[in-house]
Amino acid sequence: MKKEYEVTPYEVKGEVDYEKLIKEFGVERINDKLIERIEKHTGDLNILLKRRVFFAHRDLNWLLDEYEKGNKFFIYTGRASSKGSKVHIGHLMPWIMCKWLQDKFDAEMWFQFPDEEKFLYKPELTLKDTEEATYEDMLDVIALGFNTKKTFFIIDTQHANLLYREACRVAKKITFSTVKSSFGFTESNNIGSIFYTSMQAVLAFLPSVLKGKNIPCVIPLGIDQDPHFRISRDVMPKIGHYKPAIMHNVFLPPLTGMGGKMAASSNKDAAIFTTDSPSEVKRKINKYAFSGGRDTLEEHRKLGGNPDIDISFQYLKMMFEPDDKKLARIETDYRSGKLLSGELKAILIEKINTFLKEHQEKREKAKLIIDKFIFKG
Amino acid sequence: MKKEYEVTPYEVKGEVDYEKLIKEFGVERINDKLIERIEKHTGDLNILLKRRVFFAHRDLNWLLDEYEKGNKFFIYTGRASSKGSKVHIGHLMPWIMCKWLQDKFDAEMWFQFPDEEKFLYKPELTLKDTEEATYEDMLDVIALGFNTKKTFFIIDTQHANLLYREACRVAKKITFSTVKSSFGFTESNNIGSIFYTSMQAVLAFLPSVLKGKNIPCVIPLGIDQDPHFRISRDVMPKIGHYKPAIMHNVFLPPLTGMGGKMAASSNKDAAIFTTDSPSEVKRKINKYAFSGGRDTLEEHRKLGGNPDIDISFQYLKMMFEPDDKKLARIETDYRSGKLLSGELKAILIEKINTFLKEHQEKREKAKLIIDKFIFKG
Repeated sequence: MKKEYEVTPYEVKGEVDYEKLIKEFGVERINDKLIERIEKHTGDLNILLKRRVFFAHRDLNWLLDEYEKGNKFFIYTGRASSKGSKVHIGHLMPWIMCKWLQDKFDAEMWFQFPDEEKFLYKPELTLKDTEEATYEDMLDVIALGFNTKKTFFIIDTQHANLLYREACRVAKKITFSTVKSSFGFTESNNIGSIFYTSMQAVLAFLPSVLKGKNIPCVIPLGIDQDPHFRISRDVMPKIGHYKPAIMHNVFLPPLTGMGGKMAASSNKDAAIFTTDSPSEVKRKINKYAFSGGRDTLEEHRKLGGNPDIDISFQYLKMMFEPDDKKLARIETDYRSGKLLSGELKAILIEKINTFLKEHQEKREKAKLIIDKFIFKG
Repeated sequence: MKKEYEVTPYEVKGEVDYEKLIKEFGVERINDKLIERIEKHTGDLNILLKRRVFFAHRDLNWLLDEYEKGNKFFIYTGRASSKGSKVHIGHLMPWIMCKWLQDKFDAEMWFQFPDEEKFLYKPELTLKDTEEATYEDMLDVIALGFNTKKTFFIIDTQHANLLYREACRVAKKITFSTVKSSFGFTESNNIGSIFYTSMQAVLAFLPSVLKGKNIPCVIPLGIDQDPHFRISRDVMPKIGHYKPAIMHNVFLPPLTGMGGKMAASSNKDAAIFTTDSPSEVKRKINKYAFSGGRDTLEEHRKLGGNPDIDISFQYLKMMFEPDDKKLARIETDYRSGKLLSGELKAILIEKINTFLKEHQEKREKAKLIIDKFIFKG
């Protein structure tokens, strides 16, 4: 039986069946009990947990066990920058989760910018391209409000003195067969791309190495990135470190419909970038956001729309309308036909543009403080 | 037809047919014309060139063309340190050549200590093992008298900030197929060992990167290491650098006879280490140095010995008796039976112990100046 979707670190295609993916990847669902356990510590829930955008995990209960014993964790995520692949709102989901976890658990945030990754995987890219893109992407991360004193940016080529030695320890435990089967590599892969997963593994234990004691780690990420950490979770105990816990988010769908994930590199009109102007946001949503509405006004009023496949409603639900009551009203009104597609789009446009106005102001200011975030060690 | 010898970066077995190896590796013989051309610049020849211990090359004529145009070259060689693999006199041959080239051509010497290499290839080694061994090996290099101001040690894990970025550029141009066929790798090789050749390639152009202009490079090395640079010579023009020139030396045979090469890791009694005491040297040579002499004194006096297979004579010829006349007399006397095996061994023992006495004194003093050699950049 052919699967109707495909989820790898390199491609997400089709309408993902997350229930199946949980089984296939061997991860656990974030269930109500776990949510309650988190809420006990945090006092409230952010939208991404409440709405189960973060829907799966590995070892989160262990992470909380350790936390409750006084063994605080650090947070790690990353961003592989690439020319022609600007940050879009889908990228922000794990980073917003990181920021929330940092605030709630007073945790250190280690953010990796593997500026060699896309260079190694994409023939046309130069290192200059990825380095310039890394600078731009750092601004987006800073704009989300991370704590200057507790957030550390690691840039692979600039921090190789810290990373390479540890990456060799990881690499020694991983054969070509393993990366071949995990990533679908062939003998035509270049030897940098083959080695790369070792560099990505290091951040999950680098703070432990620097501080000379084992510190738990949690990695919020899109579930397509899980294969990288499946390998490194196997390796880490073999070199004396904890396996990192992982929190997986579902994909933010592209404007064009519920299949796949928002991607910066394919159709520019199917993504909302953090640097888009209000008129661009308006144009894209009005023109491209897939609608669950009916073909004619009359039909819509009579039969109602379908929020389950309506991209504007989904974006509100996943990221932009934190108020449960307001969201419920929008859903009811849309389903009943009282709320029209154009009106629903207008709500989303306003929400996104409000968010982006503030984000873009903070992104400008980030240029002045970027150096504070780069790890000096 | 099965070959009777085997030469790879990982093993040298059997009695090497260097004539065949030149064809097989696609290198050129260092002929009289080239020797004359070198001598024109250097005024004299060191023993290693005079006796054709350095017997083959790639692009040495190009290197001299550039030099004659005023485009000076730098020298690069390296040493992959390993616990249980101390420096022996065979290791010194390319390093002595480097020192001579530095003096004669006023050239910068870049010396790489890839402290991750043996760690990646040998399951039992830790990084601590290779780092400790690297320290010891640096003392041997310094003891040979390199110019403090023009010699730069690069240690892979400590200088990864300089190396990793450039290694990625190299790695992007090398597929697994290529390393598989060049080094006989399989899918069971770890991904660090697969990547490693990129790190080794970098030193052949790092000074060019640091100085922002293309500088020719020459690499003196044992011919078994040639495959590493065959790959990197293919890659370098693709990333904007000169192919390095290479000078290949034959192997110093082990004490036990003319097959293979002196190796630190197999039979400790078949190698003379730089830290051996005078009595150890005496014991090893007297007991193990393969002799070309006859079974009895009478036979030897009557029929004479065979210097071509006599290890003591070969060591004198290759490294320890620079005076051509003295060497010729020893050869004649041995061939005629006038010189006995024990007497020949005594000559070598005296020569090696004189060399090692001075070397070991300098090696002690090197501990005080080691930091001057480590590149700060």
